[in-house]
Amino acid sequence: MAKNVSFKYVNIKNGFWRHRQTTNRDVTNKAVRDRFIETRRFSALDCTWDESMPKPHIFYDSDVAKFIESAAYIVQKDPDPELERFVEGLIDKIQKNQCENGYFNSYFLAVEPDNIFKRRDAHELYCAGHLTEAALAWYDATGSDRFLAIMRRFIDYIEKVFVVDQSASFMTPGHEEIELALFKLYRATGEVRYRDLAMFFLNNRGTNDKDTTDFVDSWINAFYNQSHAPVREQFTAEGHSVRACYLYAAMADAAQETGDDALFEACKKIFDDIVSRKMYITGGIGQSHVGEAFTVPYDLPGRRAYAETCAGIAMAFFALRMFEIDPDSKYADVIERLMYNGILSGVSLGGSEFFYENPLEIYPPFNNKDVSVSEEHREHFPAAQRMEVFDCSCCPPNLTRFIASIGDYIYSKIGEGVFINQYISSDFAEGKIKVKMEADYLTSGSVRITATGVNFIAARMPSWCKSFAINQPFSREGGYVFIYNTSKPIELQFEMTAKLVSASHLVIENNHKVALTYGPLVYCAESADNGPNISNLAISRNLNAEIKFDPYMAADVITVDGWRLYEQESLYADYTGRSTKTRIKFVPYFAFANRGEAEMLVWMHAI
Amino acid sequence: MAKNVSFKYVNIKNGFWRHRQTTNRDVTNKAVRDRFIETRRFSALDCTWDESMPKPHIFYDSDVAKFIESAAYIVQKDPDPELERFVEGLIDKIQKNQCENGYFNSYFLAVEPDNIFKRRDAHELYCAGHLTEAALAWYDATGSDRFLAIMRRFIDYIEKVFVVDQSASFMTPGHEEIELALFKLYRATGEVRYRDLAMFFLNNRGTNDKDTTDFVDSWINAFYNQSHAPVREQFTAEGHSVRACYLYAAMADAAQETGDDALFEACKKIFDDIVSRKMYITGGIGQSHVGEAFTVPYDLPGRRAYAETCAGIAMAFFALRMFEIDPDSKYADVIERLMYNGILSGVSLGGSEFFYENPLEIYPPFNNKDVSVSEEHREHFPAAQRMEVFDCSCCPPNLTRFIASIGDYIYSKIGEGVFINQYISSDFAEGKIKVKMEADYLTSGSVRITATGVNFIAARMPSWCKSFAINQPFSREGGYVFIYNTSKPIELQFEMTAKLVSASHLVIENNHKVALTYGPLVYCAESADNGPNISNLAISRNLNAEIKFDPYMAADVITVDGWRLYEQESLYADYTGRSTKTRIKFVPYFAFANRGEAEMLVWMHAI
Repeated sequence: MAKNVSFKYVNIKNGFWRHRQTTNRDVTNKAVRDRFIETRRFSALDCTWDESMPKPHIFYDSDVAKFIESAAYIVQKDPDPELERFVEGLIDKIQKNQCENGYFNSYFLAVEPDNIFKRRDAHELYCAGHLTEAALAWYDATGSDRFLAIMRRFIDYIEKVFVVDQSASFMTPGHEEIELALFKLYRATGEVRYRDLAMFFLNNRGTNDKDTTDFVDSWINAFYNQSHAPVREQFTAEGHSVRACYLYAAMADAAQETGDDALFEACKKIFDDIVSRKMYITGGIGQSHVGEAFTVPYDLPGRRAYAETCAGIAMAFFALRMFEIDPDSKYADVIERLMYNGILSGVSLGGSEFFYENPLEIYPPFNNKDVSVSEEHREHFPAAQRMEVFDCSCCPPNLTRFIASIGDYIYSKIGEGVFINQYISSDFAEGKIKVKMEADYLTSGSVRITATGVNFIAARMPSWCKSFAINQPFSREGGYVFIYNTSKPIELQFEMTAKLVSASHLVIENNHKVALTYGPLVYCAESADNGPNISNLAISRNLNAEIKFDPYMAADVITVDGWRLYEQESLYADYTGRSTKTRIKFVPYFAFANRGEAEMLVWMHAI
Repeated sequence: MAKNVSFKYVNIKNGFWRHRQTTNRDVTNKAVRDRFIETRRFSALDCTWDESMPKPHIFYDSDVAKFIESAAYIVQKDPDPELERFVEGLIDKIQKNQCENGYFNSYFLAVEPDNIFKRRDAHELYCAGHLTEAALAWYDATGSDRFLAIMRRFIDYIEKVFVVDQSASFMTPGHEEIELALFKLYRATGEVRYRDLAMFFLNNRGTNDKDTTDFVDSWINAFYNQSHAPVREQFTAEGHSVRACYLYAAMADAAQETGDDALFEACKKIFDDIVSRKMYITGGIGQSHVGEAFTVPYDLPGRRAYAETCAGIAMAFFALRMFEIDPDSKYADVIERLMYNGILSGVSLGGSEFFYENPLEIYPPFNNKDVSVSEEHREHFPAAQRMEVFDCSCCPPNLTRFIASIGDYIYSKIGEGVFINQYISSDFAEGKIKVKMEADYLTSGSVRITATGVNFIAARMPSWCKSFAINQPFSREGGYVFIYNTSKPIELQFEMTAKLVSASHLVIENNHKVALTYGPLVYCAESADNGPNISNLAISRNLNAEIKFDPYMAADVITVDGWRLYEQESLYADYTGRSTKTRIKFVPYFAFANRGEAEMLVWMHAI
């Protein structure tokens, strides 16, 4: 068993991710806060709604919770008395409105007090889970246990309703999340009943969901919320992808905490199902907007991708937990794919605008094509432009907490041995272990690691890297190189080349196409650089790549040889195959759509 | 002004279309009849519905009407007393239930008698139009005017309600069709008021639709049923594609009958909009299942194509009428594209199974991919297999009437000059004009025309043909070669080659892809011939085509050189571009999906 090192012990002082964390702290978190004020998400905690006001959403509490959790991670590293006071004010509201019995949910208390724990679809346990995670983070960051005490009272009540009295209209959450919170609570407090409550929800799922609400008869089926089979008999990723990966992450927690092999085997199979059959090259998961769900293997449409930012984050949670049980580089590889591509794309370079969906192709002229029907009946395409706020605003505060806690993903330990999972400039000290890493990972590919008090350093060999150099003797295992002599700095050099990647022949959409990558970054072409009709372009196998650092993106842009089809005025004409030579500019996928609405393309034809 | 020669004067005695007409008569029309008996479409004419019975559809009368019209065309050429008796029995029912005031609609009389002419969306005038066309055809075929008299009484009543009293809840039909019937009625009877009633509906459209029903506020907008602008200011094809093309055909009728230049200009612009920006290579139109509608220019998705069979037929009606005003080969070219591809594909080779939608690509594994939601909420894909009957069964009887009257599309006249629009083995005699054509058009490309009593023969040069030979001197105009010396047989030889066609660079779906054609036929590859994963194939520019006649399809199958991608087990891997040489077999598009559910592909990558 490995143990991931908490971001608390990790300092990120410079480089790509420090830059991102600064923007996250100074811009993104403030933008989320401003939007939440405007949209009355915070004031909904007052529980004073009446018919004259816009109705709050059932999941507002979870948005607030993720904001608080993000604030906790930020103030833990960079104290901010004003932000702390603001959060304490939110906690005041929660405390004031918590029921005698411990219950708190701003929506149900204000809008549907008669339906408490009667609607499986209504995110009550989901909100409770997020609030609990926020309370734990706030306690960690500030030492104040007021919020945590509130949430422990609420959890006590949940235990009473669901386990002791079994008086709720359902047995398992319609949207998983509380299971993750309960494992965190168990670890923080050592109280076994939290773990047992999590296991109660896991063990009843798919066997005894007792869903007596109307929702079961409606547009979804049991796959949607992973109630189609007992968790130990779930071997493929199914249904709503955020729900799914929160569940799978909790299953991994459970496997770790209880040593349950059947659960771990299910987790491994599900992980492989996602990574080998249902994941975009950007790491994005949940292919379809229909149910925001996983679909069938190899169905990976580009223009109609869903690939919700939150699902990517949930997948990172799942992978992070899997590594602890099974220290293999494949988990960190997936996290890397996500953190530099399909998650990071969810926020603009400036930090104040977001994507909920992360398509692999945008062609604005076809996005609103069903002109003869009203807008809500048109075929759905992902937004072509970043937005300041969404109605369903789960992704922005999920991003802020992910970026603020990116330090969680860098190091793991087995005893005094340290795994380097992500190459991020940072230092980490815990007990006698001290590690310092200087990484120029996205550009030159060079990494320097200084370590004291360790038995070994295990450095991940990224799946994209075919050639590397190390200045020390090493052995290889599980995708890591193990260096036992750490008396002098370890110098790693990954060969960085612009290269083309193909998808499996079963991904029919991408047959005969390629994606350009450079290190862990997936690239895309945009009409902002290449003029309109970028699908007319084809990339040359003989890339002749020019790589140039772009300070605004804090990464390289790449220009390669390619071809542009001759324009054909006739709708149909004899094929000539004529094209003209051109250069094609690619930018990192995470930086797409930062210059207004434009065409974008990841998978491009190769000639 | 040219005049199209009615199928009545044209005999098709052998060859491809005779074969199709025989199947149509002996199998398809009987299959439609059997399905209509099963689904109570005929018995609905009894108007005896009560709550204990399944509700009839609002458009059942139009299905019955198209069946009768088809039967009329069939018995006109091949007398069939049993079929005639059957149809007379249907007319009995209509006669029996026609109201005192002339009204007849089996749905409204039985189900919603209080809502007569109160629901613009409810197809009443559409059904009346189809019944009128059927009555005219029945009169032509049998000489019996009983049905026609019934329908003239109904039309009188419609004139009273809509023009005189203006007492309906709407002013123009929600689904166009009656306008076409009224022009036919005007031509058959010479009574100007029928033309005027058609003009009333046309002139009020988009200016004074007076739609007081709820439907206007629902999921569609004014584009859906072409009410967004006055007809003379409609220059692009919009909305529900069958509605649209029935309207455009009627506008062409109106332009011809009234000499209205503004109407003709609108028709020309709309025709060009469709043909140059919104038509599949198969002739299919109406790109989206959302509203069964035209979308935006160059949006021509293959797997999600709608391209309804009925819309193709409606487009052929439009083109046929345009030719009479503007004798140009472009109209017959479009009819040819449709009749050999996107219309004919609507019926199986055996004649008893149908497609409503005619996609350009089928990949069954992804057709029902949204496994976590109920079936009606899944993303829509066209059926991957032909069906015996549909709930909405407009297409099968539309096909039977189209095929039975294919003779309408072959010849046109200007005085004693004869245009050969379609190369179909047939003879035609009208007055002193006699023309006989022997055409081996789909295979060898040779055509022999013998004519007496004509001033000239104008033979269409098909748009696909780059090289031809004629045994006579000729001049060229409007896409036709004019031969004035018809004293000896005219021998035409079109160069037949398997060739590749590309789509405009603005059709992003088809960039870097080609379609294989041979004469007027578009081809497709199927997994039945080429094994699974046909999107892995790429066609070689250097075709090396082997062409072989297939008696069952009554057309050639073509085998060409190509490449198959190496199978790549990993979801993502370094691009190798490796592929193996192979032969790829193509069948005519009209013959697709005749061997069970299988993959199909028209547009294929070219190497």
